[in-house]
Amino acid sequence: MKIAIAMLLTLLLLFSNSARGDEEAAIRAVLMNQQAAWNRGDIDGYLSGYWQSPKLRFASGAEVTYGYAETAARYRQRYDSKAKMGELKFELLEVQQLGEHSALVFGRWQLTRATDQPHGLFTLELEKFAEGWKVTRDHTSSGN
Amino acid sequence: MKIAIAMLLTLLLLFSNSARGDEEAAIRAVLMNQQAAWNRGDIDGYLSGYWQSPKLRFASGAEVTYGYAETAARYRQRYDSKAKMGELKFELLEVQQLGEHSALVFGRWQLTRATDQPHGLFTLELEKFAEGWKVTRDHTSSGN
Repeated sequence: MKIAIAMLLTLLLLFSNSARGDEEAAIRAVLMNQQAAWNRGDIDGYLSGYWQSPKLRFASGAEVTYGYAETAARYRQRYDSKAKMGELKFELLEVQQLGEHSALVFGRWQLTRATDQPHGLFTLELEKFAEGWKVTRDHTSSGN
Repeated sequence: MKIAIAMLLTLLLLFSNSARGDEEAAIRAVLMNQQAAWNRGDIDGYLSGYWQSPKLRFASGAEVTYGYAETAARYRQRYDSKAKMGELKFELLEVQQLGEHSALVFGRWQLTRATDQPHGLFTLELEKFAEGWKVTRDHTSSGN
């Protein structure tokens, strides 16, 4: 009987670890899709990784932008050509699952452009919705 | 009977909301204590808000520092006089509890010094330990 319970618990643990692994893969895929969209000059594809809500929060440097529409407008204004977009590379340093529907991702970003190479760090909060994982809060910083 | 159950549920809800409110107050107190310590030139008091662990993560601009000792050394080097420390002001914009032992805080910081006024944003993760809430991950950015 004890063996049966131990086996059941082991199976449950394996199952829950594998479910968690699947979620981490899904989260990584959202960010890798953003990177791929950016690198083909598809800003709409990039933005589709964000939560389409007035409650989206995008923080960069000393400036906070609230709302998907406002965040999208900011991106479209700052990166209005393929030359300004350059080549984006994300490096995910830590994916930390907070529960079934919430996760934090910390990593590095780097843009390679003809004349400069801006780079820095990001802390993202992602939440899982019916349509999948979306970035709901973004805090981005860059080197001086 | 239904009324008794409804009353019990209401009491439980009130209790859980009040417990949550207590935790938020405790989290805010950690950061207000950091601010007060900073403003009396007490860098050790300020640092006591951080998790004393090699796993502490402190990210600023494009640079990540791992470890309490390393983070403390960075602070002691950059702010080695009261003039460099200046007057610190935190503004907590959002305290988001993630569970019983984990929370996120987003806010603004500003230093007022004789010659400049550096300012920016922070995203903090705090965790609750036996000795209370501590900042375990800090991502800080500043304006250009």
